[in-house]
Amino acid sequence: MTYKEKYDFLVSRLAEVVDLSRAAAVLAWDQQVNMPRGGMKARGDQLATLSSLAHARFTSPEIGELLQDLAAYERELPYESDEASLIRVARREYEKETKLPAKLVTELAKAANDGYAAWLQAREAKDYGVFRPALERIYRLMVEKAQALGYRERPLDAFVDESEPGMTIVDVEKLFSELKETLVPLVAAIRERLDRVDDSVVLKYYDKDAQWKIGLEAVRAIGFDLDARGRQDLSVHPFTTSFSPDDVRITTRLREREFTMGFFASLHEAGHGTYEQGLPKRLERTILCRGASGGLHESQSRLWENIVGRSHEFWEFFYPTMQRYFPEQTSGVSLDSFYAAVNRVQPSFIRTEADEVTYNLHIMIRTELEKAVFDGQLAIADLEQAWNDKYQEYLGIVPKDPVDGVLQDIHWSGGFGASFISYTIGNIVMVQLFEAACREIPNLKAGFAKGQFAPLLHWMNDHVHTHGAKFQPLELVRMATGAELSARPYLDYIVTKFSALYGL
Amino acid sequence: MTYKEKYDFLVSRLAEVVDLSRAAAVLAWDQQVNMPRGGMKARGDQLATLSSLAHARFTSPEIGELLQDLAAYERELPYESDEASLIRVARREYEKETKLPAKLVTELAKAANDGYAAWLQAREAKDYGVFRPALERIYRLMVEKAQALGYRERPLDAFVDESEPGMTIVDVEKLFSELKETLVPLVAAIRERLDRVDDSVVLKYYDKDAQWKIGLEAVRAIGFDLDARGRQDLSVHPFTTSFSPDDVRITTRLREREFTMGFFASLHEAGHGTYEQGLPKRLERTILCRGASGGLHESQSRLWENIVGRSHEFWEFFYPTMQRYFPEQTSGVSLDSFYAAVNRVQPSFIRTEADEVTYNLHIMIRTELEKAVFDGQLAIADLEQAWNDKYQEYLGIVPKDPVDGVLQDIHWSGGFGASFISYTIGNIVMVQLFEAACREIPNLKAGFAKGQFAPLLHWMNDHVHTHGAKFQPLELVRMATGAELSARPYLDYIVTKFSALYGL
Repeated sequence: MTYKEKYDFLVSRLAEVVDLSRAAAVLAWDQQVNMPRGGMKARGDQLATLSSLAHARFTSPEIGELLQDLAAYERELPYESDEASLIRVARREYEKETKLPAKLVTELAKAANDGYAAWLQAREAKDYGVFRPALERIYRLMVEKAQALGYRERPLDAFVDESEPGMTIVDVEKLFSELKETLVPLVAAIRERLDRVDDSVVLKYYDKDAQWKIGLEAVRAIGFDLDARGRQDLSVHPFTTSFSPDDVRITTRLREREFTMGFFASLHEAGHGTYEQGLPKRLERTILCRGASGGLHESQSRLWENIVGRSHEFWEFFYPTMQRYFPEQTSGVSLDSFYAAVNRVQPSFIRTEADEVTYNLHIMIRTELEKAVFDGQLAIADLEQAWNDKYQEYLGIVPKDPVDGVLQDIHWSGGFGASFISYTIGNIVMVQLFEAACREIPNLKAGFAKGQFAPLLHWMNDHVHTHGAKFQPLELVRMATGAELSARPYLDYIVTKFSALYGL
Repeated sequence: MTYKEKYDFLVSRLAEVVDLSRAAAVLAWDQQVNMPRGGMKARGDQLATLSSLAHARFTSPEIGELLQDLAAYERELPYESDEASLIRVARREYEKETKLPAKLVTELAKAANDGYAAWLQAREAKDYGVFRPALERIYRLMVEKAQALGYRERPLDAFVDESEPGMTIVDVEKLFSELKETLVPLVAAIRERLDRVDDSVVLKYYDKDAQWKIGLEAVRAIGFDLDARGRQDLSVHPFTTSFSPDDVRITTRLREREFTMGFFASLHEAGHGTYEQGLPKRLERTILCRGASGGLHESQSRLWENIVGRSHEFWEFFYPTMQRYFPEQTSGVSLDSFYAAVNRVQPSFIRTEADEVTYNLHIMIRTELEKAVFDGQLAIADLEQAWNDKYQEYLGIVPKDPVDGVLQDIHWSGGFGASFISYTIGNIVMVQLFEAACREIPNLKAGFAKGQFAPLLHWMNDHVHTHGAKFQPLELVRMATGAELSARPYLDYIVTKFSALYGL
């Protein structure tokens, strides 16, 4: 076989693996959106079979030989070509997946399964102690996993590299300490003047049908294709999944007395959705047909949720629609007041409901705790206390109940590593990308006030989405913005926006 | 390995094949219920990968060896045991699937794909000639398929055996000639007095939301679990699919001016659904966890649609609900008139909309045409003319447009064999089963008037569903009813019911 033939053969074998994982995504979507509860057991078996077949086919010696044979071909090709990138990314993942002993994978899956059950029970009992043994088991297995995968300097690097390929925990720490320096005092300053912003308008009663409809209007307006290439449904936790760039599913949830929850969940997921719908035809059915990293994916969701959806310009465009749908609720509320209401800062316990300013502190707390455990400075047994201490330190509040504290996120029930970093990296990248777009497109932000979102979407299509998973996050940020990853632009954005809002 | 270990190993390997085909069923359900049209291409790839993996795993030499090794074990076990049945059914299917050359399978899949496109075009153009070449190609490949599979006496037997294992086209012909002898004159007699039944009540305007809700009430009433173990959705063509006995999906469609279409589609599919929900726990995730044949499955859907849903007793129970949902439409319409309306006989062109009496003639016509083609007495080129002649002969009407005639069913676009026989076998089996249940349960039918459907459902659970696919249809009918398959009870049922309605 020629190199080209071998390459095509590799692509066709990997296409089957892609098909299997997309099929699994359909099953997982159905599980959260439609499945009657009786279906749980069978669905678990079906998903396990699909994932074990996908793993077996991906890690087969045949793939290993093809990758070896194609090493010379890869060196001949430009680094940024689709072909070289596919071989490079396939090799990276092949090496990772073949490093993990099957026994460890199975044990981790079991521990995650039991961990989820224990987490639910602990929440029910409002008792961290119920979850602790499961979490200790998960942590021990995660240490083993880090050893098996290998890492640059510290075990946590193995997990940082999983969600943000090419980055280390030191990179992350540097970003976080920069954020902390500005955000902690900013939050403290805002806490002194919380009552400058009144958000009672979004806490009135909002009919769910009308919420559903206005959410769809907003999603459509920013350019997520809800007709031929996507749809929105309801689920307990909002999420986005993709079965191909031409079939992307987003979900939302609605609460009658919290308009912002459903509306911004829709925009957030639609942001993820634009990434998936923006992946290029030429990469379809390849392993490169997905986002570059968790952080890059979050950069897109937060871009549309926050930079766009919580901008004054967006509401200049959309407030008339809001008034049309909800004339009573918005009666006597000015555009400026409404804009302020959807941007109200309020130190609170729940990460997923946090405002833009405090959000990163939630992430920082979790990441610092993970790091302390992996560095041997904190025992899993003491996690609850450490959690509460940090909330006191950074946000000035202490949860009374572990359900609002250490038990709030599902993440640790399935694995304990660098589980949250992508959210903050997403925030940082978001601003860098947005500013690069603003430099290239005159009056980009002003256009939002006229409902012109296509220029921003197309810029993201051309500078981010088109590359799929070809590049690592640091490479991609450099290519798209001409700069290194940096927290500075994000901090400037936050300080400017919220100083204005709170008169600081 | 001991026999027991080998058997368990076989079961575990087959469980993976089951998982793959159930996963494919989820993808197919989603395709018809939710999928945006952009998803078509990727979904086709995903389904093809799942089915080719399932086929490859099922026909692997490893399975062949296990089946061979287990032959002696099977002989030691009672024929009706789960173990012997599983080995027996697995062997039968293994032999079938390994007989088909991969090339023929691929060519048939392509021909079906092209055939579907040609069928759609022909319907668009209202021209059978557009479909003909595709159908000729399909027929040639089906002849090859019959040769590859082998058959008892005539090529069509290969396809009869596929949907009704153990039966031949001669068995089917015998049933059909018995039906014809009674039904053709019955239809002729009713045609003289069509206006004795007025169905204008079901042709009034019915709000779709209310139709949806009353359909769910009826489905729930007959015992299909819509909460924990199933759900109903809308689709273009109603169908039932199952991902496990605890996750069964039915669909319906609604037409504003034809109440019966949606209502009886719901009952029909819920009937299929009771079969799937009734399959026993002990067979879950095995190849026996499905209905015994196409005909047996139809016996359940038609039982709940017709014997129950179109009975006077059912409406004694349900007409008050109907009046509550639709007070205007039913105003001044007596129970008896409504009962007559939902049972109106009307020779018509479209099989899926046919009444109980004429339905079998539609099936008979198609089966006679298939037989004539396979016997070399009819060319595919002359199929349209032959179709129209038979409609004249049996129903006294001739379609003006091939869309209402030879182009009406999707079936032949994907294969040309004994494609329709299960519908009529279902009708026949339905009455035999129902009468056996009536012999064992006093006042079974009278109970319908009080909404008591559980005794009938439980009888079917115990005498039909519990066996899954262990037995062939003729065996199962014998076991459940103590009698051989016979058209006589069905004809008695039809003649009694419709003589009364039409005063014959």
